Amino acid sequence: MNKIAVIGLGLIGGSLALELKKSTWATVYGMDKNLEHLNKALELGIIYESIDFDRIHEMDVVIIAVPVNIIPELSLKVMDLIGEKTLVFDVGSTKAAVCDALRKHPKRKNFVALHPIAGTEFSGPDAAIYDLFTDKVNIICEKELSSIEMIERVESIFEGLKMKNVFMDSAVQHDIHIAYVSHLSHISSFMLGKTVLEIEKDEKNIFNMAGSGFASTVRLAKSNPETWTPIFMQNRDNLLKSLEEYIKNLIEFKDILTRKSADDVLNIMENTNRIKNVLAGIKQE
Amino acid sequence: MNKIAVIGLGLIGGSLALELKKSTWATVYGMDKNLEHLNKALELGIIYESIDFDRIHEMDVVIIAVPVNIIPELSLKVMDLIGEKTLVFDVGSTKAAVCDALRKHPKRKNFVALHPIAGTEFSGPDAAIYDLFTDKVNIICEKELSSIEMIERVESIFEGLKMKNVFMDSAVQHDIHIAYVSHLSHISSFMLGKTVLEIEKDEKNIFNMAGSGFASTVRLAKSNPETWTPIFMQNRDNLLKSLEEYIKNLIEFKDILTRKSADDVLNIMENTNRIKNVLAGIKQE
Repeated sequence: MNKIAVIGLGLIGGSLALELKKSTWATVYGMDKNLEHLNKALELGIIYESIDFDRIHEMDVVIIAVPVNIIPELSLKVMDLIGEKTLVFDVGSTKAAVCDALRKHPKRKNFVALHPIAGTEFSGPDAAIYDLFTDKVNIICEKELSSIEMIERVESIFEGLKMKNVFMDSAVQHDIHIAYVSHLSHISSFMLGKTVLEIEKDEKNIFNMAGSGFASTVRLAKSNPETWTPIFMQNRDNLLKSLEEYIKNLIEFKDILTRKSADDVLNIMENTNRIKNVLAGIKQE
Repeated sequence: MNKIAVIGLGLIGGSLALELKKSTWATVYGMDKNLEHLNKALELGIIYESIDFDRIHEMDVVIIAVPVNIIPELSLKVMDLIGEKTLVFDVGSTKAAVCDALRKHPKRKNFVALHPIAGTEFSGPDAAIYDLFTDKVNIICEKELSSIEMIERVESIFEGLKMKNVFMDSAVQHDIHIAYVSHLSHISSFMLGKTVLEIEKDEKNIFNMAGSGFASTVRLAKSNPETWTPIFMQNRDNLLKSLEEYIKNLIEFKDILTRKSADDVLNIMENTNRIKNVLAGIKQE
């Protein structure tokens, strides 16, 4: 690989550019319609040069790292411009829409639908960091629609980032599961932040009394609304279902508390404690 | 100070014992009705010796670090046994009940109602660690009911642990605020864990797809149900109010999402982003 283009130089695109510059011999080019981000990425040395769509055909790899509402259309545009051997992938947090958009594209084999599950609550090229992806998981969907060569290149790129590649048959299944284990967490965190800000008009009180537990639970409420609004809108149906179940559980807990049933409160927490086993394998921030 | 007794040698009591052994010249004695915990604390050197109530009168300081449902009665028992100059404080996460119980006690001046806001999701003497309290806040309530000397001793003890002492007039106010910034977080986290465990029958999927954001949001669901059930039951009325507001906000968000109003989704998140300012001052785990 000699030339990589990263379109969208925010937290994820910027961090990928940094890592790929380090772990491959490729020259990393960049595009971003936000000129401030583009200039910042040049200034920070995240990319070597800024390019436009007229140079997409030269690239060995094109990475699409823009908000998910823009991904389907932009991916189609990129796929129309690439060379025979160009690998294209996007890194969006939803996969069904982009897979749908590209399903019938004559170069669909050049595209790999993937989702590196990594991030922080920060955004923009300033937030780009090394090691964001280390020891995390990269989900690859619908691998049978990509050529074996493209899958192998993707595997090698993400192994180079010290990620574990995991295959899922269906992009639709990806979106259902990710609604629960990522998107719902963001909503629970944002709404917790909102609730506490509303009651604690005097923010000094929160500052004084909030411990590390609160900080941890509400951390995702610092996330970028520009990134997350399109994700929520695109994965709306799955998210609504997970949100309904979450609300149902909260109402059930409220009812138990209203009834003063200490045994039920204890049981419900004891049964949930087994989340420990699940979390044991996840690298914490 | 020469002799300190810590009653309840779990995460908080054990960590306090460790720190006080290091930061004072006192001998630290311990009590725990759980003999396994007591032996573990002796074995780990957290306490010097195990004692019983018959030696409470010898102590310069008695620290009560048991579950909050036991604190009022146990505090009364301890207060009846102490010497003229003994300082007594509890470290429970609720303050109204213990303050109520002791309000009329002839030695009320010897007692200080406080809450060192620190903890982890682990429990028992094995979880006791150094530096748990460093850079965190210690809330002191109803200081006018304690003698100036006792308040000064408490200030000095917690400054020795590198904590910031903050005074609140009312124990009732403490409990209202802590419901929002601590207790509610635990419920939101437990219910999020429950929701995800219910849907993800195959726990492998959670393991693969859950990122550090989920881990952070659900961290408190690892907390000890034996500690938290009494806290929830004791602070029930405040917690129910905060829980109602949280559920109301979640339902509002669900409605906005149902209506596909991307602008409202964006606005609600942008307005909540200012939680950043609040969190900036909190030491993260």
